[in-house]
Amino acid sequence: MSQPSASFSVTMRVQLAETRGVGSITTAVGDAGGVVTALDVVESRGDHLVVDLTCNAVDETHASALRDAVDAIPGAHVRAMSDRTLLLHLGGTLSVAPRVPLKTRDDLSMAYTPGVARVSRAIAADPSVARNLTIKRNTVAVVTDGSAVLGLGNIGPAAALPVMEGKALLFKRFADVDAWPVCLATQDADEIVRIVECIAPVYGGINLEDIAAPRCFEVERRLRRSLDIPVFHDDQHGTAVVVLAALTNALRVVDKALKDVRIVVLGVGAAGTAITKLLLREGAGDVVAVDRQGILVESMTDLDETRRWIAENTNVDGLTGGLSEAIAGADVLIGVSGPNLVTEEHLASMGKDAIVFALANPDPEVDPALARRHAAVVATGRSDEPNQINNVLVFPGLFRGLLNVGARKITEELEIAAARALAAVVAEHELSPAYIVPTVFSPAVVPAVSSAVEAVARLGLDA
Amino acid sequence: MSQPSASFSVTMRVQLAETRGVGSITTAVGDAGGVVTALDVVESRGDHLVVDLTCNAVDETHASALRDAVDAIPGAHVRAMSDRTLLLHLGGTLSVAPRVPLKTRDDLSMAYTPGVARVSRAIAADPSVARNLTIKRNTVAVVTDGSAVLGLGNIGPAAALPVMEGKALLFKRFADVDAWPVCLATQDADEIVRIVECIAPVYGGINLEDIAAPRCFEVERRLRRSLDIPVFHDDQHGTAVVVLAALTNALRVVDKALKDVRIVVLGVGAAGTAITKLLLREGAGDVVAVDRQGILVESMTDLDETRRWIAENTNVDGLTGGLSEAIAGADVLIGVSGPNLVTEEHLASMGKDAIVFALANPDPEVDPALARRHAAVVATGRSDEPNQINNVLVFPGLFRGLLNVGARKITEELEIAAARALAAVVAEHELSPAYIVPTVFSPAVVPAVSSAVEAVARLGLDA
Repeated sequence: MSQPSASFSVTMRVQLAETRGVGSITTAVGDAGGVVTALDVVESRGDHLVVDLTCNAVDETHASALRDAVDAIPGAHVRAMSDRTLLLHLGGTLSVAPRVPLKTRDDLSMAYTPGVARVSRAIAADPSVARNLTIKRNTVAVVTDGSAVLGLGNIGPAAALPVMEGKALLFKRFADVDAWPVCLATQDADEIVRIVECIAPVYGGINLEDIAAPRCFEVERRLRRSLDIPVFHDDQHGTAVVVLAALTNALRVVDKALKDVRIVVLGVGAAGTAITKLLLREGAGDVVAVDRQGILVESMTDLDETRRWIAENTNVDGLTGGLSEAIAGADVLIGVSGPNLVTEEHLASMGKDAIVFALANPDPEVDPALARRHAAVVATGRSDEPNQINNVLVFPGLFRGLLNVGARKITEELEIAAARALAAVVAEHELSPAYIVPTVFSPAVVPAVSSAVEAVARLGLDA
Repeated sequence: MSQPSASFSVTMRVQLAETRGVGSITTAVGDAGGVVTALDVVESRGDHLVVDLTCNAVDETHASALRDAVDAIPGAHVRAMSDRTLLLHLGGTLSVAPRVPLKTRDDLSMAYTPGVARVSRAIAADPSVARNLTIKRNTVAVVTDGSAVLGLGNIGPAAALPVMEGKALLFKRFADVDAWPVCLATQDADEIVRIVECIAPVYGGINLEDIAAPRCFEVERRLRRSLDIPVFHDDQHGTAVVVLAALTNALRVVDKALKDVRIVVLGVGAAGTAITKLLLREGAGDVVAVDRQGILVESMTDLDETRRWIAENTNVDGLTGGLSEAIAGADVLIGVSGPNLVTEEHLASMGKDAIVFALANPDPEVDPALARRHAAVVATGRSDEPNQINNVLVFPGLFRGLLNVGARKITEELEIAAARALAAVVAEHELSPAYIVPTVFSPAVVPAVSSAVEAVARLGLDA
């Protein structure tokens, strides 16, 4: 997708021989497809002018082209160009902040020694008070092994850190949850499990992130068994919850019922697996899962444990073949695979009032404009299209609710409650093909999701 | 030691039948040995008064006695009593704070997806830029296994957390270092080493804390070998550095030289070992180490590796026996052992112008008032005595310096530079038997220590 955006914003420092040349540089950037967002004069002399020109580009190549375009103007010289996103990340995007004053000796003696010894003794005597007297009450670990980071793949723990920092920012911004990055220099499931078990005392919840399938399934399953705090793999369940919420509303738009529609899930990785399971749990009557091998069917012999389960629990009509066979006549396509895997012919073969979620990031399975010609409701993962299916609608409120009640686990009931609450944020009169999920900045989202989660989690604690 | 202090401050909510009874409760608290620090009227009616009375007590028993004293006043009734230190720790003492704005879509697209992908790619292409583009630049892990927490012993990782939070507060308050608690639910050296190796990508340094000897030696030694960031066991080296600084100044006070004096180190745990090594490194000529077994001598057969080294490298005169034999005629006593192990006879047997550091916490090896009768210079770990030997004089500035230059290791040279810089903060004209180290709130300490550390660490990086 080729729109200039703030995510690729650069600032050039340009020296101009003549003051009247300013207009020429903004024109040059515009002509080259860039969008000027700011112009600041940093030095003005009789004979020359220095300006900082900030503009949005499409990508690195485009940014270079913009620089060349400005440099080509007679009398203009680009002294330097900096990438605003990289500048924003200088020194990282998180810090640790004191929640108590440390001005006087008395402050020190209560926050640290000798007073803190009494807090430690209280916890040693009754470990359950750790949730009240420490950061455990509001703290979540964002754990990755760097093996499946965004669309970048296996880039390792150091390169994953800026993403985990960003995730922690979202936790804080949207739900006042204190999240901390844990980027592990190991991709061994046993080690990951053991490490998370050992670091758990500090945390009230574990958010697994960007861990490759199928390792993510094993790590989550084992940690859920061994820990007494909730463990949530966002790439699986966060995606599943927001998809279920969006699908609930999309079905309301086209007036169809979940139990009646045929849903094709394209891509059976972490997200596709969790979506399939949650849809079945909520009563979906006909899910067909399609992978690189084609439609998953019971007769396949080379399936791993997860795919085997899906093959046995989907495809009620016993379809065989690939995406073309699965999608013909289908009501819903949920793509969690890769770019441009869905063609116009695929879309044209779908049933009436089709729903298309093309969630591959950053490039969807199909151009959403094309999809809208054939489907009644279209959603993507992109922020520059209507109906952005974004996990940030789920994980902040979900963990807010879990931490509020000191929950010890996450269940499918709880995920479904979160999905229903999220769907209900869009009121009947607001619902439209272009508005099936609230925007990420809607202040109603986190309270709605967290309340629903709290209610279900409380039942779990009482049980 | 029995002084009421802010570290044991309680607030009683007292209902009084008559408004003129207020004076009687402050008197009652004073008579019972408490110190009233605040009195707030929270409700005033014609017939009664409710006040919040805040006062410092000595300990829990004393706080109960104060409550009873107030309750015994006719017409007064203590409705509730709360512990201010526990209240301060409610919800923990740290939070995670954003360093960048997250108000608009553009902010999100730079801090998180899609812009963050470019930051990740930059690090994947050149891992060394992680120090610039992530929190690694300013972040230290405070790692414990909860096995030797303050004077409380092996209370485990959950009960250790408030202490690690407090440590992180000090890092932030004094040196703007972002420190994060890592409390491990394991006390296996192999596991601790492996876990710290795996979590290291997020951090620019590792501060080991409250890990029992001899495990702490092995963990530190192995981590220093395997990691490319500095690893520092504060209980060892932080203590050693501040002791060396204090001793340097104490020797200036009494006009003796380190190479000439006999120094008795009482207690050969983590701190005693590190102190001994650093003193020898700085040129101490005669150190005698005394443990529960008595003076460490080469002929002992049951010594572990660390004690063996000490026995072989100290006690030049081949003294044998216990503390009495070691201390007779000694110039310096450095106690890092337990309460009340040193008697007046011990002190009286020391040489002229003796120096006594009684650092056991919270109760020193000997009453400092008693020690001052026999020694020229006395120091303790207590904040209510002159010459507080406190690690907070070292670790914030030390890590500040290490992080500033992106140091990869800590050396004895660097520790000695830190000690000399700290000693030099006390100017010649300020030096006195009651002022051998600056106070923890002195703004000169962190800049002095960090500059000295930076200078030495830069040499190490160039080498």
